[in-house]
Amino acid sequence: MATIKDIAQKLGVSVSTVSKGLNGAKDISEDLRQQVLATAIELGYKKKSTYNKETRKLVIFIENMDYETNGDFGHEIVSGFEESALKDDWAVDIYSVDHNFQVSHPYDSLLMENGYSGSLVLGFSNDDPWMSDFAETNFPTVLLDNFIPVNPHVACIGTDSFEGIDMAVDYLVRLGHEKIAFLNGSKGSHISDERMEAYLKSMSGHHLSINPGLAVYSYFVREAARYHVPGLLSQGVTAILCGNDLIAAGVIDSIRDRGYKVPEDISVVGFDDIPLAAAFEPPITTIRQDCSKLGKSGFFALQSMMEQVAVSKNLLRPSLVIRSSVGVAKPRIISTHNEDRDSLLYANPLLYETYLKKNLMESQSSE
Amino acid sequence: MATIKDIAQKLGVSVSTVSKGLNGAKDISEDLRQQVLATAIELGYKKKSTYNKETRKLVIFIENMDYETNGDFGHEIVSGFEESALKDDWAVDIYSVDHNFQVSHPYDSLLMENGYSGSLVLGFSNDDPWMSDFAETNFPTVLLDNFIPVNPHVACIGTDSFEGIDMAVDYLVRLGHEKIAFLNGSKGSHISDERMEAYLKSMSGHHLSINPGLAVYSYFVREAARYHVPGLLSQGVTAILCGNDLIAAGVIDSIRDRGYKVPEDISVVGFDDIPLAAAFEPPITTIRQDCSKLGKSGFFALQSMMEQVAVSKNLLRPSLVIRSSVGVAKPRIISTHNEDRDSLLYANPLLYETYLKKNLMESQSSE
Repeated sequence: MATIKDIAQKLGVSVSTVSKGLNGAKDISEDLRQQVLATAIELGYKKKSTYNKETRKLVIFIENMDYETNGDFGHEIVSGFEESALKDDWAVDIYSVDHNFQVSHPYDSLLMENGYSGSLVLGFSNDDPWMSDFAETNFPTVLLDNFIPVNPHVACIGTDSFEGIDMAVDYLVRLGHEKIAFLNGSKGSHISDERMEAYLKSMSGHHLSINPGLAVYSYFVREAARYHVPGLLSQGVTAILCGNDLIAAGVIDSIRDRGYKVPEDISVVGFDDIPLAAAFEPPITTIRQDCSKLGKSGFFALQSMMEQVAVSKNLLRPSLVIRSSVGVAKPRIISTHNEDRDSLLYANPLLYETYLKKNLMESQSSE
Repeated sequence: MATIKDIAQKLGVSVSTVSKGLNGAKDISEDLRQQVLATAIELGYKKKSTYNKETRKLVIFIENMDYETNGDFGHEIVSGFEESALKDDWAVDIYSVDHNFQVSHPYDSLLMENGYSGSLVLGFSNDDPWMSDFAETNFPTVLLDNFIPVNPHVACIGTDSFEGIDMAVDYLVRLGHEKIAFLNGSKGSHISDERMEAYLKSMSGHHLSINPGLAVYSYFVREAARYHVPGLLSQGVTAILCGNDLIAAGVIDSIRDRGYKVPEDISVVGFDDIPLAAAFEPPITTIRQDCSKLGKSGFFALQSMMEQVAVSKNLLRPSLVIRSSVGVAKPRIISTHNEDRDSLLYANPLLYETYLKKNLMESQSSE
């Protein structure tokens, strides 16, 4: 491993100058300090104190995610991380960082100057300047819901989208839904691309036809729904799975604005289980992420990388929280098969559900 | 949490009888002992001593995997697990288990009787009787290369197949290969299905056409290759990616038996990096799994579940180990474009590689 002497030699300056540069002393020029840091990083230098008990410091970087108030999505993640880290004698700092901050503070330099041994990164998107820093960093770095290929110092954590969405689709199918739309968050974000893939895989796993018009990207905000709901309704969907709970709330608003009822006419499923989901009227059935445990798993992934075990992905189990925004599908969806039988079934939802379950089982066992 | 008293009440027997049943005393009948265990499990009883320092015991179950000799695939996994577990004051037992053993020893009972707090399970297939026990267990259980849906007490660990296979395909494409076959292990095993999905995804990500005849399941043994290689060669493949290193060795044998050379005529890539890969002639380029680190990550996943953080999947970074079984693709694959240019390029492999890289970049940037 490189020493201070190696850095000094490479730069042709004294050891004490390097030491000043690394420790942020004010009596060397900013230019020289940056050169010292860049060289230290290039040579893979690590401050000796980095893994000492006295100076065990980790950092959480947050962008574009609320975390300061109890109930904020980020709040529980931060608390979970801190709880595990403090138990293991690490101090934790938190930075709220934006685009400009990232441009003016290269990632590795910031960690080295402040003596951080690793970081948890929340709320970043592919546009963030540090995403290219992460591809090259030697500091253990854990990204929530983002993936950096190849670099063994960077891990992805999150909740298993494939399992969560499959649970939701499975539940909808058991209630007779076939025409299930997916109103996703932003295209090009790692997590929404993964959820789209999960939706397509689950639909196909349930032998439901995939209609590109029903798999729609929008934005992770409540207002996103109203541009898309009319189109989905006109295609005859009976259920809308949403990229998060905010979209689900917006979808329910829009469905009602158009004179339909949730769940009698259309069922709606969210993702995340933010407090709004339980408080909404009707309470929203949703795929729950346990944020406190996400925070803990972020710490475990950092620990693992600090012990040289390079985690690629560490995904937690989701759970499906069943509330009132989902009901039995309106029988019209199978009315093409047999009008008489359907109207009979329509009169008795329980019979209808039994019929569907039986048919499902038959179609599964006949494969 | 249920107590011994609850079990006694439910069964209508004395507390001391329950205690004898739980501790394997010989002076109660086998039938009654089984009833006590079944009720204890049903009520979610946990021995008080389970998490005590004095009796911290974990167990590794192995089937169908060599582990006793240095260099065996399982040996490094077991050592890595033990190393991390012992450091944290856990004792580790190892059982080699077969089908009959599983049938005669229900999983939860075995753990409870022996005071194990959790287990690492290696080498199991979907046919193993315990796979249905895992779906219901309350004991923290980590499966290598197998996935049990929904149960929060069971985690999957492994190496990220998607990343590994994408690295290999990427490397082959950069050397001019387009017609890349995948000779996989057994169909229906979780890991080979995942690797097949990874191959298809990577081929499509590299804009290469997918030909079902080139994506073939066989078995994870060296002899598997000889039935499939002739068919792949007759389809004009220039590279064969294999489900593991044993298959790769068999593929190279078969290619030679038919008078072709590796890598001059056909390139071959393995998976795992068992000692055979480096020792083979030519040494085999392969997607490396770090077995010792897999063992460690198995322990980390158990730890995580014991702290109530339900891991679904914990996947490690693979690496691509470049050896001599891969070469530049024979130019005939692009000879349909321009015979003259190709023969020029053929005379100069370096020029050829530069040409391909340039074309690759152009085709990427023109999208």
